[in-house]
This record gives sequence, structure tokens and C-alpha cells, in this order.
Amino acid sequence: MKSYRKELWFEVPSRRGFVNITSQIETCLEESGILEGLLLCNSMHITSSVFINDDERGLHQDFERWLEQLAPHEPLALYRHNRTGEDNGDGHLKRTIMGREVVVAISGGQLDFGPWEQVFYGEFDGRRRKRVLVKILGV
Amino acid sequence: MKSYRKELWFEVPSRRGFVNITSQIETCLEESGILEGLLLCNSMHITSSVFINDDERGLHQDFERWLEQLAPHEPLALYRHNRTGEDNGDGHLKRTIMGREVVVAISGGQLDFGPWEQVFYGEFDGRRRKRVLVKILGV
Amino acid sequence: MKSYRKELWFEVPSRRGFVNITSQIETCLEESGILEGLLLCNSMHITSSVFINDDERGLHQDFERWLEQLAPHEPLALYRHNRTGEDNGDGHLKRTIMGREVVVAISGGQLDFGPWEQVFYGEFDGRRRKRVLVKILGV
Repeated sequence: MKSYRKELWFEVPSRRGFVNITSQIETCLEESGILEGLLLCNSMHITSSVFINDDERGLHQDFERWLEQLAPHEPLALYRHNRTGEDNGDGHLKRTIMGREVVVAISGGQLDFGPWEQVFYGEFDGRRRKRVLVKILGV
Repeated sequence: MKSYRKELWFEVPSRRGFVNITSQIETCLEESGILEGLLLCNSMHITSSVFINDDERGLHQDFERWLEQLAPHEPLALYRHNRTGEDNGDGHLKRTIMGREVVVAISGGQLDFGPWEQVFYGEFDGRRRKRVLVKILGV
Repeated sequence: MKSYRKELWFEVPSRRGFVNITSQIETCLEESGILEGLLLCNSMHITSSVFINDDERGLHQDFERWLEQLAPHEPLALYRHNRTGEDNGDGHLKRTIMGREVVVAISGGQLDFGPWEQVFYGEFDGRRRKRVLVKILGV
């Protein structure tokens, strides 16, 4: 059995944003040499997400509007967490909706995806360097 | 180490619906011969879900009402994604709430479940054939 | 390849509550002797969650307020599921938001976490004994 580990670093220049990281994950898979197994990709932070959906700009705008409606950034006083001096209370909730991690099947040395599946890093408290973990287990 | 892969196909006759797929997953597990490991079951589409909850009709009606409240199908113009000619903007959001995938422990050749855990395919843009992937890794 | 399985039991004395279970999961990992692999931790019940976020009391109060807003406990008649004699319709929905499970990378015999990641059991229908499953696969 083989295992593989890599950290991917991102710095989103705005508070919120989505980054398509599918090709970086494919590079990890090639480096691993693993043909059959499971790949875990997770945010190592608690105000960002890794999720799978469509790479369509309108959809990403829909996510942005919807998440702001479900857990608005302001007023900051809405969140007790912000009493600690943070202003990212909303980011913890938005990340909860979008999820921390994805697990992807590896089959024949490929990400075993349907036709529209793409992996995104979702940032909800950006403007600083943050990490995503890729771990692959298999043969 | 063994690995196993299978696609399950579904065609839900309405726009939205839930299908209990637990027995089909159990059949996959039997075919795999795997006794100890991890099973991934994910939708291969981005407007449907695989999730674990109770097989109770009233609960499924609650999910339907609740998801329509959180991300209503209409007005279609609510979603920028629908400007691409799609009418499934809501389906991408509903699937995000319900989740893309489940990971299940395999112990002693069984799905290692609590008493009420059942696996469902959740469709949010149906009336066409769509796929679920089952991947099992273990010994 | 090694595999490891353990059930952790909890009895939250109120209807809802969050319990930091990170150290119990670390103990499982030590017992397993696994150095490289994947760890699944899931609720075995359908009205509770396992999730990863920050161990900060204000944030947990934010989660409580927010989940009550998204899926209020009362009125009980809001949920068709409650017609079965249950009063936990809201708990099924809250658990859906917070998630059933987490998958964590194991690297060098440690939970491969970012600086603030902690694992929580989230209870939405407490005052009785309930279980969490820990399954580890690796070498």
C-alpha cells in the first residue's frame, strides 16, 4: 500500500472567493503513482472549504449571494465569536454549509469523476496564506 | 489490498426525489469480498446527493419543504446560473446542503451502521439517467 | 494493511450540545498503531453530527442560534416526521447542516490537522446514550 501527502497553499486576495484546484489535485495524483484508492482533500483551516461542483461563474455568484443570505458577514455583532476580536464569525458558518472536505475515488490512475465534477477551494476569510491537504491512500 | 468499483444508475421520474440505495450498496459490498475497509458512495453529478438519514416518509417531506425554503426552484431568474439556459440553479444549492458523498466503515464484511442509518440518493434535477459511484478499499 | 474500529459513547444531558472529542480520537489512533492512512469518524445516529471546527464557546453559541433559525425545534407540528410520535424533526435537519462524518488524514502517526482544527460531537436530540464510530485504515 502507498500513501501520499501534499499541502497546497492559497492566498485569495479578497475576503471570499472560489479557486478551481482540480488540476493541482491531478498533479498530486500523478506524483503519487497510485492507481486504485481514495483521495482526501480538505481545508486545514476552519473558515474555508473544499467542495465539488460546477465551474460556472454564474453558479459561483449564486453561492456567494446565498451564503451571505444564510450567514451574513455584517453586522459583526451578530456573532458572539466576533467578541474574541475576530470578524470571521460568518466564515465559520459559510464553511459549514460548503463543507470541509471531499473524498474522491481513484480508479485507473484518474480522479473518478462524473462529467461536470470539479474541485474548488472556497475561501470565506481570505487575504492571507492558507492551506489545503491532499492525502491519497491506495495501490 | 483490494479495491472495488461500481456505478449505479438512477432515473427519478420527477424533478426531485429520494431513493433508498442501501440494499444496492450492500450488494456491492458482497461482490467486493472486502471485510475491513472504507466505502465511498458519491453522486457523479452536481445536482444530486448521496446522504445518510432515516427511511421515514414524513422526514423526506420535511427535507423537501425545507430545501425549497432554503433554495427555492422559482423564480428561475433568482439564479444567475439559469442564464446559461439551465433551470437547475436551485438543485446545485440543495445538493450542497444534503452533501455529495458518504464514507462508510466496513467491518466484518458489513456496512458498519447504527440502527437507523440508511443511504439515500437525493435527486434535485431528475427526469434523466444519472449515476452514483461506489468505491471500496480494504482487505 | 491495518484496520481499527472503536465506538465512543456519549450522553449529552441537554437536548443539544457540542463535545470536543479530539483527544478521544487521538487515543484511538495511538491504540491502532497506524502511521499513514485515513480515519473516519461518524455519528451512528441520524440526529447527531461529527464535525470539525474551532473550540471557541462564542462560536458554539453562534452555531446554536443559527441552527435554531434554519430549523427551529418548535412548533413541533412544523415537521411531518413528528407525527410519528417523535419530537426530533428539527434534529434531523440540524444534523444535515453540520454533517454526519469527518475523514481525517493520518500522517506520521498523528491526526494531520491545521492549527485550529478540533473534532466535535454535535448532539441535536440528547438526554440518552448515543454512539460515534472511529474506523482507521492504513499502515
